Amino acid sequence: METVNKSAVIVGAGLVGALWAVALARRGYTVKVFERRPDMRAKGYAGGRSINLAMSARGWNAIDMAGIREKIEPVAIPMPGRMMHAVDGTLTFQAYGKAGEAIYSVSRGGLNLELLHIASSFSQVEFFFEHRCIDVDLNQPYIHFEDLKTGEHKTIEAPLIFATDGAFSAVRHTLQRTDRFNYAQQYLDHGYKELTIPAEQGKLMDAHALHIWPRGNFMMIALPNADGSFTCTLFLPFEGPVAFEHLKDDASVNAFFQEYFPDALPFLPNLLEDFGNNPTSSLATVQCNPWQWQGRILLLGDSAHAIVPFYGQGMNAGFEDCTILDAMYDEMDGDWSAIIPAFAKRRKPDGDAIAALALRNFIEMRDLVGDPKFLLRKKIAAHLHAKYPEFIPVYTMVSFSNTPYHLALQEEDAQNQLFEEILAINDVEAQWDGPEVEAVFLKWMAQKSV
Amino acid sequence: METVNKSAVIVGAGLVGALWAVALARRGYTVKVFERRPDMRAKGYAGGRSINLAMSARGWNAIDMAGIREKIEPVAIPMPGRMMHAVDGTLTFQAYGKAGEAIYSVSRGGLNLELLHIASSFSQVEFFFEHRCIDVDLNQPYIHFEDLKTGEHKTIEAPLIFATDGAFSAVRHTLQRTDRFNYAQQYLDHGYKELTIPAEQGKLMDAHALHIWPRGNFMMIALPNADGSFTCTLFLPFEGPVAFEHLKDDASVNAFFQEYFPDALPFLPNLLEDFGNNPTSSLATVQCNPWQWQGRILLLGDSAHAIVPFYGQGMNAGFEDCTILDAMYDEMDGDWSAIIPAFAKRRKPDGDAIAALALRNFIEMRDLVGDPKFLLRKKIAAHLHAKYPEFIPVYTMVSFSNTPYHLALQEEDAQNQLFEEILAINDVEAQWDGPEVEAVFLKWMAQKSV
Repeated sequence: METVNKSAVIVGAGLVGALWAVALARRGYTVKVFERRPDMRAKGYAGGRSINLAMSARGWNAIDMAGIREKIEPVAIPMPGRMMHAVDGTLTFQAYGKAGEAIYSVSRGGLNLELLHIASSFSQVEFFFEHRCIDVDLNQPYIHFEDLKTGEHKTIEAPLIFATDGAFSAVRHTLQRTDRFNYAQQYLDHGYKELTIPAEQGKLMDAHALHIWPRGNFMMIALPNADGSFTCTLFLPFEGPVAFEHLKDDASVNAFFQEYFPDALPFLPNLLEDFGNNPTSSLATVQCNPWQWQGRILLLGDSAHAIVPFYGQGMNAGFEDCTILDAMYDEMDGDWSAIIPAFAKRRKPDGDAIAALALRNFIEMRDLVGDPKFLLRKKIAAHLHAKYPEFIPVYTMVSFSNTPYHLALQEEDAQNQLFEEILAINDVEAQWDGPEVEAVFLKWMAQKSV
Repeated sequence: METVNKSAVIVGAGLVGALWAVALARRGYTVKVFERRPDMRAKGYAGGRSINLAMSARGWNAIDMAGIREKIEPVAIPMPGRMMHAVDGTLTFQAYGKAGEAIYSVSRGGLNLELLHIASSFSQVEFFFEHRCIDVDLNQPYIHFEDLKTGEHKTIEAPLIFATDGAFSAVRHTLQRTDRFNYAQQYLDHGYKELTIPAEQGKLMDAHALHIWPRGNFMMIALPNADGSFTCTLFLPFEGPVAFEHLKDDASVNAFFQEYFPDALPFLPNLLEDFGNNPTSSLATVQCNPWQWQGRILLLGDSAHAIVPFYGQGMNAGFEDCTILDAMYDEMDGDWSAIIPAFAKRRKPDGDAIAALALRNFIEMRDLVGDPKFLLRKKIAAHLHAKYPEFIPVYTMVSFSNTPYHLALQEEDAQNQLFEEILAINDVEAQWDGPEVEAVFLKWMAQKSV
């Protein structure tokens, strides 16, 4: 039975919260959105994470649901593949999918701003910025905030709460105290630091690629911005032989870049300033279960499943939460007390799967993309995909389809077995598109369909 | 350099906190111990967990360190082995180790009380009961408590803090907010419920054994108490075909025991009352890293590594934390700023290992102990151990030695491979002590020592 009182509280006005406010408003809901940070429409963007994102199919679906494709598309930069930078400066381009398939570099701040504008264009959406969630009442329909401008404590009636308050979710924190709530936060040994390639230097780089400098245990990447600049991110262990701990002054930073990223140096005129000013940030995977409480509190996006950024799926996964939940609203006649537990149960394996895929892709990006065997595997996979469209490379499944992430993870395990066999074929480099490879493939496909 | 100001704060006066207070007091430390619960010396024991424990070698070491063996030994009941109860009532006894080796059933409350008495016999140990830790200052040497009797908030100077406040540690909760703190709480799908076999019925059972009713996916166990009674614990899934969710009234409880534990029924005259009155509690593994903060705050016992009870090692592991830390105090000249990080780093792999071993032992207890192949494995292991003393069964390593847990876990993996090979020998049942088994064993030993 559809919920009679069509009102909801959203905690967090980041990407997922703002999008979900739009989705609820479109269904006629009265929505109160609380956000700890100041209103970015007035004060500019002050988010904690990197300033550009890779939007792929799941993200676009949600953009369409919100009806803002025409606002986002013009400033989204297609990246049809990776451009690998070897230490000697050699460039290798590797397409992500077929012609026409691309992931898109978008500005996190710009996208968030656009979503806030759309959401606030609905009269029944009300925003409360600089409000910190203090506590959630688990037995009564109330939630408590502190108004950070006045110090005032406010109790809000909230029979329906969507927590989109990110990796360090205050709402999840409350659930964590309940019996049998599973929770894990696991940090990478690597941190990251952002650096900027200004537009003047950026215009000399290929703007339609995600640039990667794979260096084994660490890497740098760069994504294009609409103004011609690039945002670089250096991923490096905090401690160890080659690590942030040793990059404490200009000389050590310079020497490090001379040794590992010499071809990037001319593009980074503000390297030392950026390196000194920008924080070294950590990266974590957050997993929990259940994502909901008594059919009236639901965690969405990073609050339920914060992942490392290496598959470019953090925002896409959070947005897909919204499209799936929106579809379930129709399927289950708007009865939140049934939708919320059903969504939490159905979606949890996908959250775990994309977390695992993202961790694996770190290995791939920093290491394997510089490995000839790995490039050969990608080439064979693309060839097989072209010839047998029912064979879908996992990257394609994740980035260019809506296949549930847990099926993509299963497929990756299966394809890893296939390619172990294929790459063991004698002289496979010379006969990669020949009958022997195809025979192994067809046998594998036949077994799979049993 | 030894810490000059010999004073410390201990948060939690449970088993590990009380023991550690004794250890510090013996070294001349001034110790303030804060505990959320009332003083059990005045008000009786009100702990959250089961009322008897299995003490093994690591526990006894700590008892000796505290100098209270003569108080504990008389009330500790040796359990040299497991008594398995089949559904048809058949009993099978399986020794845990060699003659003379036993684990000991001790009363949690009695042990805690004894430790509190010893600790408070030192004039420089001060207890503050009904004090709840609210917050720990991570940048200043202060810790904050609420006096639950008055509601008063107190700030205590604390340059050195030992957190022995258990699985739901408030101190750890504060650390969890710091960057790069890894944390996981993982609940079992099984819950537990305690039941009592009164002394009148208990006297008809073998008091010198840990009784197990293995039933595949679930089980019941019983440990003897000093008064002749037994404490039973039923471990059963919360949900599923056979689960607590279906045991909601007397009829269903009776039918369940009739079906699965018919031989125990006559010993449980208060079954229905116990079942109705006692809670169904959950079981979790808690893991975190690092166990310390800036060389001045250290998590010990369950606050650092809460584990499931199936190896009987929770208390033993916490006590061993104390004996190891005490030894490191001498080795490192009493310099806590060096001892604390070194202990946390050294001991963490052991915490993880005993967590894994305890989860594995649940499978063993509830399932494998009823399996003839498993019993055969135990028999062969005991035989090999007798003939080749350098071969040590893992249970012996864990329960009757001080071998670091992480080495016991490695050894278990190695022995699993050995017995996979041995149990695959044709007709191994008939020639379990013959030359073929021995040949496999000797080859395995030779490879191991490479």
